[in-house]
Amino acid sequence: MIGRLCIVGVGLIGGSLALALRRAGAVGEVVGTSRNEAHLRRAVELGVIDRYELASERAVEGADVVVLAVPLGAMTAVCRALRPGLGEEAVLTDVGSAKASVVASVEAAFGGLPSGFVPAHPIAGTERSGVEAAFPELFVHRRVILTPLESSSPVACQTVRGMWEQTGALVEETSVEHHDLVLAATSHLPHMLAFGLVDSLARLGDHDEIFRYAAGGFRDFTRIASSDPVMWRDVCLANREALLAMIARYQIDLRLIEEAIERSDGETLLEIFNRAKQARDGLYSEE
Amino acid sequence: MIGRLCIVGVGLIGGSLALALRRAGAVGEVVGTSRNEAHLRRAVELGVIDRYELASERAVEGADVVVLAVPLGAMTAVCRALRPGLGEEAVLTDVGSAKASVVASVEAAFGGLPSGFVPAHPIAGTERSGVEAAFPELFVHRRVILTPLESSSPVACQTVRGMWEQTGALVEETSVEHHDLVLAATSHLPHMLAFGLVDSLARLGDHDEIFRYAAGGFRDFTRIASSDPVMWRDVCLANREALLAMIARYQIDLRLIEEAIERSDGETLLEIFNRAKQARDGLYSEE
Repeated sequence: MIGRLCIVGVGLIGGSLALALRRAGAVGEVVGTSRNEAHLRRAVELGVIDRYELASERAVEGADVVVLAVPLGAMTAVCRALRPGLGEEAVLTDVGSAKASVVASVEAAFGGLPSGFVPAHPIAGTERSGVEAAFPELFVHRRVILTPLESSSPVACQTVRGMWEQTGALVEETSVEHHDLVLAATSHLPHMLAFGLVDSLARLGDHDEIFRYAAGGFRDFTRIASSDPVMWRDVCLANREALLAMIARYQIDLRLIEEAIERSDGETLLEIFNRAKQARDGLYSEE
Repeated sequence: MIGRLCIVGVGLIGGSLALALRRAGAVGEVVGTSRNEAHLRRAVELGVIDRYELASERAVEGADVVVLAVPLGAMTAVCRALRPGLGEEAVLTDVGSAKASVVASVEAAFGGLPSGFVPAHPIAGTERSGVEAAFPELFVHRRVILTPLESSSPVACQTVRGMWEQTGALVEETSVEHHDLVLAATSHLPHMLAFGLVDSLARLGDHDEIFRYAAGGFRDFTRIASSDPVMWRDVCLANREALLAMIARYQIDLRLIEEAIERSDGETLLEIFNRAKQARDGLYSEE
């Protein structure tokens, strides 16, 4: 049970976490903070938070757990702002899609890593954003990856783990580096491919005509291109090295397909498509 | 009303067409043919076809409409085989994802273009294949693109149009060249990107670990990588020129994203992501 929870950035993820914990009876009071007062008012109306403070250093006062749920690019400034109000015993965690950059932000803002800080990443979300899109079941059966640091206290780790377990999530642990590489492959790279495709087609001359012929596969394939542009800009910059490595790797593999088409090499194409289908079918055998 | 319909290749598309027309009461008898007798027997059991013939020249005998629903790579051989049985007045159409190659196949097999031949492409499908996956609603509100040729008789065009309208589809017409270019952009290219991504990740060392961290976005994004490998190999070879042009274009656009990440150019990334999100949201505003 968390006595007072502070959500910094009450959007899809922060809002859904608050709703899930409230529904589970796992939290006393939820305080929200954000730069945008209209969003905070809406969050109160929707029953996501109990109250809000515009000044984050006031919002975190007396909080047992503080969850940073702002875009990665805002992390350092947000940590600097809330630092004066953060209690000695408070647990600090985040929901960022890239972990090394959050660790760097916290370190820069605090001049070191507080023992209460435990980085975390719920692998959940939709292409929607904002508190209106929040719902309490978002994390059910989803993985939440904790990347505890050497500086993280066991008590803080246990608190963060317990919090996420209350939402119905499956909690795992790995290292910051491993997390960032794997997420670059399974999430950041696919987002680049989808954003890139839709933008590429949108800039074709007769794009209305082109999109009109799109089938269901296109709709599914491009869904992630409706994701929040600011969040994704920040992910790109925050996980730059790992993402660049994955893009480079992918370009080589796409070239293999291209070259096989160029030389009308059906055997190689069939081999690639079979391997991909087998991997995909194995992943989601229930579909 | 079609007296006798012959479906050549009773898989997802051919089977669903038969089911849709039967449900609409728009067909008398449905005869199936295929290389695989077990599939044909299953199609009879499922009520998709009334009867089958293994020899396609016998299957098309007396048929008012013959629908070619085999992979593009099999088209020429299939047309050669059925040609002796095809009636003078029979309407011949297909469901291929690339039209120029089907036209070339028919021309090669018949030594010219029969006036009863009208190429068509229902833009519908799922990542599944085979007659077991067929269902009568597959084409409801989906587009079917006819690409009538100079050689196509108005009566044949009207028959093919009427047939597809009975399935609930929205029928449109365009040229073979335009169809192939647009489909390369909205369907063939996305399939290459998805097959390429899944194969790329599957060949990483710890791919079980990697896939385990995949979120819902990955599932949607990669759904089309479960599509039929043989069909897609054939599409690549059949629509080679248009697809290569689209892959080349896409690589340039992906390079723009890569370069923006390399120089940490958040402004350009935000611009690309915003443009993509706006285009995608505009397409599927009801989501």
